[in-house]
Amino acid sequence: MRYIDEAVLGDLARGAAILGTGGGGDPQLGLLIARQAIREHGPVALVHPDDVSAGDFVVPVSMMGAPAVAKEKLPSMHPLAAILEAFAHAHGRAATHVMPAEIGGIAALIPVAAAAILKVPMVDADMMGRAFPQLPMLLSSILGVSASPMVMGDEWGNTVVLRGIDDEHTERIARTVCVEMGASALMALSAVPGSDLKSVVVEGTVTRAENLGRALREAQAEHRDPVGAVLDALGGSRLLDGKVVDVETRTDGGFTRLAAAVKGLDSFSGTTLTVRSQNEHLVAMLANDDGSHETLAASTPDLIMVLDTATGAAVTTEQLRFGARVSVIAAACDDRYRQQKALAAVGPRAFGYDFDYVALENLVQDEAKATW
Amino acid sequence: MRYIDEAVLGDLARGAAILGTGGGGDPQLGLLIARQAIREHGPVALVHPDDVSAGDFVVPVSMMGAPAVAKEKLPSMHPLAAILEAFAHAHGRAATHVMPAEIGGIAALIPVAAAAILKVPMVDADMMGRAFPQLPMLLSSILGVSASPMVMGDEWGNTVVLRGIDDEHTERIARTVCVEMGASALMALSAVPGSDLKSVVVEGTVTRAENLGRALREAQAEHRDPVGAVLDALGGSRLLDGKVVDVETRTDGGFTRLAAAVKGLDSFSGTTLTVRSQNEHLVAMLANDDGSHETLAASTPDLIMVLDTATGAAVTTEQLRFGARVSVIAAACDDRYRQQKALAAVGPRAFGYDFDYVALENLVQDEAKATW
Repeated sequence: MRYIDEAVLGDLARGAAILGTGGGGDPQLGLLIARQAIREHGPVALVHPDDVSAGDFVVPVSMMGAPAVAKEKLPSMHPLAAILEAFAHAHGRAATHVMPAEIGGIAALIPVAAAAILKVPMVDADMMGRAFPQLPMLLSSILGVSASPMVMGDEWGNTVVLRGIDDEHTERIARTVCVEMGASALMALSAVPGSDLKSVVVEGTVTRAENLGRALREAQAEHRDPVGAVLDALGGSRLLDGKVVDVETRTDGGFTRLAAAVKGLDSFSGTTLTVRSQNEHLVAMLANDDGSHETLAASTPDLIMVLDTATGAAVTTEQLRFGARVSVIAAACDDRYRQQKALAAVGPRAFGYDFDYVALENLVQDEAKATW
Repeated sequence: MRYIDEAVLGDLARGAAILGTGGGGDPQLGLLIARQAIREHGPVALVHPDDVSAGDFVVPVSMMGAPAVAKEKLPSMHPLAAILEAFAHAHGRAATHVMPAEIGGIAALIPVAAAAILKVPMVDADMMGRAFPQLPMLLSSILGVSASPMVMGDEWGNTVVLRGIDDEHTERIARTVCVEMGASALMALSAVPGSDLKSVVVEGTVTRAENLGRALREAQAEHRDPVGAVLDALGGSRLLDGKVVDVETRTDGGFTRLAAAVKGLDSFSGTTLTVRSQNEHLVAMLANDDGSHETLAASTPDLIMVLDTATGAAVTTEQLRFGARVSVIAAACDDRYRQQKALAAVGPRAFGYDFDYVALENLVQDEAKATW
């Protein structure tokens, strides 16, 4: 066990932004919320899933939508307390621990605030190991843990308890409630008894995010290659360094789809990587510049991350701009996301792409075999 | 105390349609639901508010939106049981009684089913004495009884518990949940302890609806004037008998507004009554045919009802058609709706009309003073 105090929030936010794989919302706002809660209630104990007892009751906390920065005010703490109280009431028992439901993006920081308010430890784990946009994409959901009863709350203090007959129904109702809550809602969901915890979470992801953030910060301070530092901490592969030469957006079935063409520079010259994103970066296709060869370089549920080549900072889907110098890296997702049942929820076809998932490691081998 | 059995449901539905004042949904569907529940669980005891004890817990049950008849199947009973269970859980106690929240339209019949399922008595009262489209228009809401925590449920069995900070917020969230639930949701809301019951309900409205329906049925059977029979039972005034000569619809701020011009016949010839409606009939303006004189004949929150002149059956806002022979009648609303605070929620200005409320009785006097 160790403590999450103010000093580590910056690293956690920096790393969570990278694990957001282009989505997940801005962790800086979550940082402000978490910092305020720590100042008021003290640091948060972080415990490994191994240290959670079978009889414990772990409450994942997260966020849907994105808080409007335009409001120029900090999301209130009030709803978080109300949500946790309504959640305890709905389940008939109080949280012994909280946990991030999603380590990618702002949702990594909200549980720190929740743990501080409740004065309970936070579990070093989450239910995605990255960011995904919908409840049925939670590893827990895929593995049979219902998101219901879940509680949503807004900045005014309205709360809603949802009991969906399945997570697809819950997702649809939650989405519409979120819109009415100002396009941004805090939530508690997918409660897990300690006995089932390890089978449905990705372990150690809070520490992973923090390590990523620290590696990045230290590399920046020491003028080392920040992307290399992230890769060393993450264990992934560099798909390409280059420059964004084209960004195309298309609205399709209510989703905004984006395709960014990144033309390789230096050792990657002669090739172009196209990153396709919705909320998150979902697919990367590598082609040589004469168009004679195109191959899949990475796809969901593996993590595709776009970093600013100079600073190593995460580049979100909305931040992809013509002319930006970026490095695209990829890392393996949790093995349980690679099972057939999981791929139906989070594989390329689940997002409308007409091809099957191939694990990143096998694609990298293919690439090595290619002549360019 | 008496019993609501299958035999009286027809009268109750017929009367509730009239008290729907043009809106409230089709009680025939509610009748099917109530009949099924009575067949399965037995008749429902109906008790007067005087017979409710201070320590009792009365649960108003209602419906939002309209069940899609196109589905050609009966709304399931299952959600009603789930809603009542979730409501009891949210309040920490079980219903000792149920009650209609709204006597106008389909919502008059749903509580019969709820009472049958729970095997508790139904209270002979409601919180409107008519139909209105939004939660903050409940007399109880105006008088300070929160609609929250309220429970909504759909035919699939999804339930949602809403805790709004006020009924305006609850209404907005409930409305959006209703859309996601297929534009039709059952609900329990605005729980009242027995001690406060009489101060926030309109007493005797179940019996009033039933009496209206019976009077209408008997007049039809005996070939007496059905509109006169309704008026005798209701105690209202006949504004005009005539023929619909123009129906104009206009969509404005998400609402469909409708104006139907009814040209007077027989003793009403030479005058035209224009009925303005949204979900319900809200305003009636009387003019002589040369347009030289126009006066308010009735307005919300007083009840404006359009009946088929030949059968006496309620004509809903959607059923207003060119050429129809109709009688427009009006009746006084509950006195508490006439207070200044209430008029802010249910008076003409609350629906976008640019004039103040005048009580029906005073308008009828004005009319008598007019020369035509």
